Amino acid sequence: MATTALLVLDLVGTFAFALNGALTALRATRLDIVGVVTLGMITALGGGTIRDVFLDSLPPATFLDWRYLAVAAGGGLIAFFSGRHLERLNGPINVLDAAGLSLFAVTGALKAVDLGFGPAQAVIVGVLTGVGGGTIRDVLIRQVPSVLSSGLYAVPALVGATVVVVADVLGARGAVAAIGAAAVCFAIRMVGVHFDVNAPFPPGSRPPEDP
Amino acid sequence: MATTALLVLDLVGTFAFALNGALTALRATRLDIVGVVTLGMITALGGGTIRDVFLDSLPPATFLDWRYLAVAAGGGLIAFFSGRHLERLNGPINVLDAAGLSLFAVTGALKAVDLGFGPAQAVIVGVLTGVGGGTIRDVLIRQVPSVLSSGLYAVPALVGATVVVVADVLGARGAVAAIGAAAVCFAIRMVGVHFDVNAPFPPGSRPPEDP
Amino acid sequence: MATTALLVLDLVGTFAFALNGALTALRATRLDIVGVVTLGMITALGGGTIRDVFLDSLPPATFLDWRYLAVAAGGGLIAFFSGRHLERLNGPINVLDAAGLSLFAVTGALKAVDLGFGPAQAVIVGVLTGVGGGTIRDVLIRQVPSVLSSGLYAVPALVGATVVVVADVLGARGAVAAIGAAAVCFAIRMVGVHFDVNAPFPPGSRPPEDP
Repeated sequence: MATTALLVLDLVGTFAFALNGALTALRATRLDIVGVVTLGMITALGGGTIRDVFLDSLPPATFLDWRYLAVAAGGGLIAFFSGRHLERLNGPINVLDAAGLSLFAVTGALKAVDLGFGPAQAVIVGVLTGVGGGTIRDVLIRQVPSVLSSGLYAVPALVGATVVVVADVLGARGAVAAIGAAAVCFAIRMVGVHFDVNAPFPPGSRPPEDP
Repeated sequence: MATTALLVLDLVGTFAFALNGALTALRATRLDIVGVVTLGMITALGGGTIRDVFLDSLPPATFLDWRYLAVAAGGGLIAFFSGRHLERLNGPINVLDAAGLSLFAVTGALKAVDLGFGPAQAVIVGVLTGVGGGTIRDVLIRQVPSVLSSGLYAVPALVGATVVVVADVLGARGAVAAIGAAAVCFAIRMVGVHFDVNAPFPPGSRPPEDP
Repeated sequence: MATTALLVLDLVGTFAFALNGALTALRATRLDIVGVVTLGMITALGGGTIRDVFLDSLPPATFLDWRYLAVAAGGGLIAFFSGRHLERLNGPINVLDAAGLSLFAVTGALKAVDLGFGPAQAVIVGVLTGVGGGTIRDVLIRQVPSVLSSGLYAVPALVGATVVVVADVLGARGAVAAIGAAAVCFAIRMVGVHFDVNAPFPPGSRPPEDP
């Protein structure tokens, strides 16, 4: 039953990432239907694929499960056909995307722990699971990945993954720790979106005036 | 004997991809001999490498076989030394490239079927095998991958891979099904090149006037 | 004892790559602390990760060893906090970077030989180990990878990897061959930096006047 809940949450996160990823790509460059759906799927499934390369857990889990493939393709198709109308739904989509980031960071880190990797490795893999798909998408549409240059995106994933890994080291394993860690990640991400917070820039560099 | 024929065809496709990939790179940006040969090899061998990551079939098959490495490097070197003269051969090179796309999509899908993957996975891997190398090349020379934005390139690969996988599901296995699927892919690709057909663009977006 | 020396050298190379990679990224585009440290780590650890994908030696060795992770993160952090002061140290950093390139090319090729791969494969993997991290970094900051377009970077790695692999084929294995091969790579790289040597450009193309 907990497994079913986790699966549903994971599929919701996958859908949110695909929708948001395809909309971001649509806004940034000119793409046909192949491009929009592909970039939605890459945003949704790319992080998990990188995770499974690093954990030597190939073939990638989401590649083997048709539900992930179908949900990701569906998100991309919806973005393709109704991209203009979805622009108004920016708020809800940001919330879904933050939920996806939180779930992917936590479940990615937990998968590493389950497979016997150390704490540092688990945290790194959690972050890569959360931010990897969007990074590949940004490279393909010729943008400097936003995770490297603006906003709080990697930081909440880092905190969320660290919380769940530290909890595991301290013996607190299970749904409560996972949900708590995801909630922390989600909260930091939403605060960052709302107040437009950035990670620190190098000493002496100018403040981020130009978007 | 059928195996030898398939190997020869696969090497021809590899050569065509390397030549075409290196010429595309040469046209797009300023490169030295290392860049031209590397990008030719990446175009020719990148799709198969992605295929083998997804199928957990590492080390990549083409990496282990010196014939693929030599043919790919040869295609890149020829492009480097005679790039200017080859521009006139655009027609034949397009035909060879379409042949390579067809072969890679069909043999990629069949490799997935042989290893016991499901039909959806086999189709996806077939497409990735066909378009993956050119996509990596385009990223390295800082272009939005053409497969995402213009022309019919992923669609014929998708159709070809689907035909051979459906034939396999229906019990029709073997050289006839494979050649038929590759012929369908090849025909769609050449029709697309000849009549400049594009995959659908998002509703409300402008027609592709500017190239 | 030889192993300890090799480990220390490898960590020095990792540190140099992280520092140089993060400084290159800082100069090229606007990044926050996450971006600078991430790009430093990718420059330092990316080549080894590609190596281990090609050698089917996942999870990547440097990912499993916290010392590599710590040294790479440290190099990125130092670049972040003192980037402006380090600009003056361009000379020493170039030397360290050439040392890293030499070590990575030679140890990458030797790892392939140790795992039973053929000479051509070992040379390719050695080059990929040396240049892979910087290539991923350049893609992420939206530059045509410098290894493809200017300077002598892949060529010294190719020569160094070839020397150590040929020595192994001829039965000369061990520290002397490895150090000799790394010294050859290092010397060619430093000569290239000092005299601004480039690999050949395509026949008929203009000389590289504009930087």
